[in-house]
This record gives sequence, C-alpha cells and structure tokens, in this order.
Amino acid sequence: MAQSPPDASRLSLNQKTTNNWSVRQAVEGCARAGVPYIGLWRDKVSETGLARSARIVRDAGVGVSSLCRGGMFPAATAAGRRASLDDNRRAVDEAATLGTDVLVLVCGPPLDLDLDAARAMVEEGVHQLAPYAAQAGVRLGIEPFHPMLITERSVIVTLAQAVDIAVRFDPTRIGVIVDVYHVWWDPDIYRQISRASGRIFGFHANDWLSPKPDLLLSRGMMGDGPIEIRRLRQAVDEAGYSGPIEVEIFNQNIWDTSGDEIITSMIERYAAHV
Amino acid sequence: MAQSPPDASRLSLNQKTTNNWSVRQAVEGCARAGVPYIGLWRDKVSETGLARSARIVRDAGVGVSSLCRGGMFPAATAAGRRASLDDNRRAVDEAATLGTDVLVLVCGPPLDLDLDAARAMVEEGVHQLAPYAAQAGVRLGIEPFHPMLITERSVIVTLAQAVDIAVRFDPTRIGVIVDVYHVWWDPDIYRQISRASGRIFGFHANDWLSPKPDLLLSRGMMGDGPIEIRRLRQAVDEAGYSGPIEVEIFNQNIWDTSGDEIITSMIERYAAHV
Repeated sequence: MAQSPPDASRLSLNQKTTNNWSVRQAVEGCARAGVPYIGLWRDKVSETGLARSARIVRDAGVGVSSLCRGGMFPAATAAGRRASLDDNRRAVDEAATLGTDVLVLVCGPPLDLDLDAARAMVEEGVHQLAPYAAQAGVRLGIEPFHPMLITERSVIVTLAQAVDIAVRFDPTRIGVIVDVYHVWWDPDIYRQISRASGRIFGFHANDWLSPKPDLLLSRGMMGDGPIEIRRLRQAVDEAGYSGPIEVEIFNQNIWDTSGDEIITSMIERYAAHV
Repeated sequence: MAQSPPDASRLSLNQKTTNNWSVRQAVEGCARAGVPYIGLWRDKVSETGLARSARIVRDAGVGVSSLCRGGMFPAATAAGRRASLDDNRRAVDEAATLGTDVLVLVCGPPLDLDLDAARAMVEEGVHQLAPYAAQAGVRLGIEPFHPMLITERSVIVTLAQAVDIAVRFDPTRIGVIVDVYHVWWDPDIYRQISRASGRIFGFHANDWLSPKPDLLLSRGMMGDGPIEIRRLRQAVDEAGYSGPIEVEIFNQNIWDTSGDEIITSMIERYAAHV
C-alpha cells in the first residue's frame, strides 16, 4: 500500500475545527495558510449572514467543500416532517448561494419513534428532497454517524445503510460522506467503501480519543488516536473519490487553541497521517 | 407479534446489577425474591473465594446462568497471548466449579495493534481455548460489544462478527451472547440473530440512557430508554433460545439503591418490558 499523503490541494478546514472563529476569521485563516477549501456550517453562516458569507469566501478565493447540515428527517407528526423538508430546502438554497454543490445530511435521531419508523422517514425525507436539490445543482451526502450517537444525531449508523439509500438514486445526485470517526470500528467498512464507489461526496479526517467524557467533543487531531486514517483515505480514493478532505474536529481543548495554531497542526498532521 | 413477557423461570440477576453486594448477598437476594438464576463475575467470586461461592449458590438452589468473563485475547507479544490463554483456562475451570456451562467472552481491545491484527488474535484465541472448554463441558459465548467501547473492551463490535467466528465451531460448544445495550442500534440485528440460531448462549437485558457521561455506567433499567427489548427478546426466542435472561446493568445510581429494591424493580420491569 502506498504511504504517500494526499495532495495538499485537497485539504479543507471544516470550520467546526476552529469553532471560536467566525466565517470571516476562518476563511482568512485558510487563505493565510494556503488551505484551499473550507467546510461551512449553517449556524456560523447565519451569524455572519448568508450573502456576506458567500462574498467572503468568493473574495478570498477559498473553495467551499460542503455545507453542514441538512437532514434531521424523523418527526412524530406530518407537520414536523413538513417543517424538516422546508428547512432542508433552505439548506439546499444556502449551499448553492455559498458556492458548494455538497450538502451534508445528518439524518436525525429516532426521537420517540421506533428505529424502523425513523429509518423509513429518513428514506422518505431524502426522496422528497432529492428533486429540489437536483434542480439547485446541489448533491446530497448522507453521513452515517457513530452508533453511540443514535439518540442524539442519526439513525443511519453504518455506511452500509447510507449506501443502501443512495443506490436508489442517480449516483451524481445522492451519495455518502465518510467520516473516519463514525465508521472506523466497522468490520465491513472496506467492503462498504468499495460499494460506495462513484458515490462518495466527502471524506472527513480526525481521530478517536478515549476515554471519552463527551461523545460529541472527544475527537482528536489526526494521529492522536487509533484510527487507520490513511488506510481509510486510500480506500476512499480507490473507490474513485478525489475531492476535498475535510478536517472536522469537535474538541474543547483544540477550540481553546488559537485558530492559526490549529491550522498549522492540521496541515502537519494531514501530511503525516491522512 | 405476541406481547407476552418471558416466563419468570428464565430471569437471572447478573450480579453487576447489584454491584455493592457480595456473592452471598446477591445469591440470598435472589433466593428471597424467587429469582431462579444469577450471573456471576470472576472478580466478585474471587473476593468470596471460588469454592465458597460454589457452595453458596448450590446451597441456595440458585442456578448460575453464566460466568463473566473470559476473553481479552489481543496482546502485543506471544508471552502476553500465552498469559491470556492461561487466564482463560482458569476462567473455564471456575465456570465448571461454579456449576455453569457458559463462559462469557469479552474479546478485548486492540491495544496498540491494528484492528485486523487484533481481530485475528481473537479468532486464534477462541480456537486455542475451544478444546479445553469442551473438555470441561463449558460453552464459550462470544459477546459483541458496542462500537463505542472498541478501545476499552472489544474489537468484536457486531453480532455478525461474533457469528462469523462461532460458525467455524461445533454449535453446541461456541456461540454468542446477545446484550441489547451492545447491539440494538444495528440495522442488521434481526438478520444476524436469525443467523445465530442454535448458537445463542445468553441474552442480556437493560436499557440505553442518554446523555451518556460514562460509556460503561450509563445503562438503565429496562423501560428507561429506547431499546426495543421485547422485540429483540422475541427474535432471540424465535432463533431457538430458551435459556436464562440476565439483567445486567452498570449504573452508579442503581448501585446506590438497596439490592432488594433493585431486584424488585428488575422483576417488575422484566414482566413489563422484556
């Protein structure tokens, strides 16, 4: 297996990694450090304003690798599901305005539904959103989440599930996002990455820290944990993915560091471990 | 789907549920409440003494549904793997002495190994232990653990993996343990339970609490979380399992309750939710 890092031209700062920074600060940080892409979050974009955020990234010449997040499909009532669809359409519009063609879908927890019902609502939600997204030129990337986050974030907990949904659609429109934190434990992961060939719309790098006092915030910088990140990245590349690689880290200690230091460390670790 | 609870004659108190109790206290608690089985732990048995523990359960007429735990197979050195095998043989002997024919295997974390290497060591470990266990009349139950515990407890994180190992052996000797906490998230679980038909050596009931400040201690009493326990239990029954159902709960708040109250609650929740 080749041990070379991916090209630096694929690196993307997911802006959650520099959570204390605004859109402008994060985009300027990327530009200063020569990081070619940024992954944006809707809450941050909303703080700055959509049109203004779009102008900031365009003016800086930084590409937007994706917008996070759509999804959150399950809801106990029809009104709740309509509200979710409306919000997802807004997310599609925002992605298009920001100049990215990838909307990341965090599919949603079961709430008080049973898992089968919630999972059916995810499928139905993707089905309903797909034509709108296609018309806007935005691809939908279904991101499986770690099973430990099932009641907080997503009933889609394996790449197999995400691919099972995606294969019912045009491969250029509906695909999957592979985040190493969520999938590294899966004994079937390399087979599923291969199955996802041609439908991988994003790859997220970070690492697994343990012990884990907080399920959301216990991500580490690449190389600080046991994940075989390079092996996963090479598998994703072999499955035909050649797009941006987002570094997405939720970690209070990292957030407490200065943004420029985070980016410097990210660039080093990307070369060494991704 | 029938909604009737399992027969009360199948209920087992896994002694970790009353963690503040000694073997004698837990066995006497079961006898007082008419709970027919207890699941024992080696650390507790060791505190009381093996021969004495065996006498306590025999004198009380309480059945021992299983002994926890063997396993912990991966080790970086050959000496480490030999030490693990020796310890597993002692666990087999202890199970036989205690009058149970089921040893639960918690297969072990990867330590500094990569996942493939660690998983191969688990397979090799089961292979090496199997003849010794067969001779002692002790069945080995491979328990898949929740993927969030991969670096703490087990590289075997899906029932599919556990079954994949078990099917290489005599079905009366090597099987699987289904603990709802570890497997409930799995979109493939009902198919895998069906695959495990004839090889299910134990079923553990409890529930999933969130938020989860501690990955090991955040289990709840049946009915306090979202797990479809009855559906899983019925699937296991349909796969031919008719043995004891252990209630195994790691939760400091529950441990701080009196043992008799825990057992009373366990009996009620078993009837209502298992």
